[in-house]
Amino acid sequence: MGRGFSFRLLATDAASQARMGEITTPRGSIPTPVFMPVGTLATVKTMTSEELCDLGAQIILANTYHLFLRPGVEVIQSLGGLHRFMHWDRPILTDSGGFQIFSLAPLRQITEEGVTFRSHLNGTSHFLSPEKVVALQEALDSDIIICLDECPAFPATEEYVARSAALTLRWAQRSKIAHTRPEQALFAVTQGGMYPHLRQEHAQALVAQDFQGYAIGGLSVGEDKDTRLAMLEVSIPELPENKPRYLMGVGTPADLVDAVSRGVDMFDCVLPTRNARNGMALTRNGRLVIKNARYVQDSRPLDEACGCYTCQHYSRAYLRHLFVAREILAYRLLTVHNLYYYLELMAGMRQALTQGRFQEFRRNFYGQQQNGGDLGD
Amino acid sequence: MGRGFSFRLLATDAASQARMGEITTPRGSIPTPVFMPVGTLATVKTMTSEELCDLGAQIILANTYHLFLRPGVEVIQSLGGLHRFMHWDRPILTDSGGFQIFSLAPLRQITEEGVTFRSHLNGTSHFLSPEKVVALQEALDSDIIICLDECPAFPATEEYVARSAALTLRWAQRSKIAHTRPEQALFAVTQGGMYPHLRQEHAQALVAQDFQGYAIGGLSVGEDKDTRLAMLEVSIPELPENKPRYLMGVGTPADLVDAVSRGVDMFDCVLPTRNARNGMALTRNGRLVIKNARYVQDSRPLDEACGCYTCQHYSRAYLRHLFVAREILAYRLLTVHNLYYYLELMAGMRQALTQGRFQEFRRNFYGQQQNGGDLGD
Repeated sequence: MGRGFSFRLLATDAASQARMGEITTPRGSIPTPVFMPVGTLATVKTMTSEELCDLGAQIILANTYHLFLRPGVEVIQSLGGLHRFMHWDRPILTDSGGFQIFSLAPLRQITEEGVTFRSHLNGTSHFLSPEKVVALQEALDSDIIICLDECPAFPATEEYVARSAALTLRWAQRSKIAHTRPEQALFAVTQGGMYPHLRQEHAQALVAQDFQGYAIGGLSVGEDKDTRLAMLEVSIPELPENKPRYLMGVGTPADLVDAVSRGVDMFDCVLPTRNARNGMALTRNGRLVIKNARYVQDSRPLDEACGCYTCQHYSRAYLRHLFVAREILAYRLLTVHNLYYYLELMAGMRQALTQGRFQEFRRNFYGQQQNGGDLGD
Repeated sequence: MGRGFSFRLLATDAASQARMGEITTPRGSIPTPVFMPVGTLATVKTMTSEELCDLGAQIILANTYHLFLRPGVEVIQSLGGLHRFMHWDRPILTDSGGFQIFSLAPLRQITEEGVTFRSHLNGTSHFLSPEKVVALQEALDSDIIICLDECPAFPATEEYVARSAALTLRWAQRSKIAHTRPEQALFAVTQGGMYPHLRQEHAQALVAQDFQGYAIGGLSVGEDKDTRLAMLEVSIPELPENKPRYLMGVGTPADLVDAVSRGVDMFDCVLPTRNARNGMALTRNGRLVIKNARYVQDSRPLDEACGCYTCQHYSRAYLRHLFVAREILAYRLLTVHNLYYYLELMAGMRQALTQGRFQEFRRNFYGQQQNGGDLGD
């Protein structure tokens, strides 16, 4: 399994768990730590593939749950798979849909066999099992696929989380058996809620099954930051050094730096793209809310030190005008900026790790984030 | 006046009034007949400037009325003018706002001095005179500017249209006197409703004032196609051969071919961009409504003979999926296709005129348009 898929460590930080490495897939290699722009419905919202490549995106994420509901996986398969469908030839990771079933779909029923749920779009009833989710991802022809898991609500009792984690473990075992395409890597999802010993035990049990990589799920679901970091700190030491670690759905720029320090290799989050469409630019000095009246005649770019297309050519005043007028170009230009910032942040961490100055990078990062921005508005 | 602005005829069609030429402005030359993509609010909706250049757009249109209301002309001026504001360095034509005042703004009051109207956005009251409209366009720093005119409603009585045309003539005279920047070309707008003799007299009176070019206004306001063509056919012979003729707000691909045949040099219309956002692709075979269920698994591009970015990389199935999911990329990709089609259509007419085979081009065009598409849906 995982033929053509490998991970190697290239550098580690002496003062933290941070590490730099490289994932190899049949569709290209991915330097880590890496941020994966989210392309839920086979499109990273507002962006073309060429623009993503220009920004340096080496891998994107798409979502099995959403693509299963529309346009339907059989449609994508008949058109030659997800890569050809969306005109993207670099690696794609597909999420299993577990998180979406438990966060979006109403009236779900979980059994040992799988989960029955209603579409959040039109209420139609569907059943997904671990085996079916693997088959869907094989049909999509993505490069890294994820086992179906149950993502417990927050808060949840210890008893509930323990039973849920045991089910996720059995589903992961079934996923591995169902997995037939060795060129696709299969990752399992560690759960365990906010209970340190459940986190540890679940990670150990999954590692004993030997997957190509491990996702850390069930975080960023409403818990506070200290709890989230504590859960990371108990989970990660249980994961093997020689496999990539993927923290699902996290987070802010500071969350990325925090998690890399704790040994995470892969991230995805809608924050840079969704916030762009809501008029929020993320910069090295913090957040900038573009509709703010102070920008009406501001001739400066979003971030004077930024090298992105948006900052090279457009003023805050123009971006504010477009956003207030609800012009699509506003959403595009802010998305370009935010993704550039995220991808540059990851590239900066990788370079610092390679050069043995990750702690200096961290200090500079936190110093700049406290400088200002609109956060206090 | 019009220093640096010139127009020269390069080819004419023996069997029609069609002609090929070149407009020169200080910001570059424009081959005619030309279609100007509409950038109402200082953005051609969904598009970057680089994308417009790649499509071959040599000039775009922006709208004084809309920019006056937001972000305000003084904002644009303080940021270095419209070109720098929107990051576009080729020529821009600004419309006077006359058409918008008479089509969008409620509670307008016309006097000899000018027009008082309420903003369609927030009801605030504004006054614009011919002099102020010239000053606004000078502040915007566009390359071709238009005299304020009254655009009568359709239908309108002969008496009303005659009085209105006389007012538009006096406003054009005042605009010419107010015009201070010789590097900007000033065009007057011919009116006359659907009354042939008023169209002729108005064109003659304006031509006697000697403008750098002539816009033909008050068409495409609800009249039938035969009437529109008849009005063109009486107006154009009154206009001088050595000045560009601009048919405002027209139209479909067939309308463009019809009007070029009658001697028009310049066009603008929201149709390719607006229809794109409504899911309609314009192709050489007619219209294609992308949400149509027949395209669910259609692996073909919008137009198999089209060389645009969208047709090179994306299937109808993918575009349908994006459009149904309301993904911004759908609006982008359809806009790219529709503008490419319009700009290629104009380039095709120019080439045919240069090569003396415009009549052959017309016959082929009409033959293909009748082939199919979704028009009958």
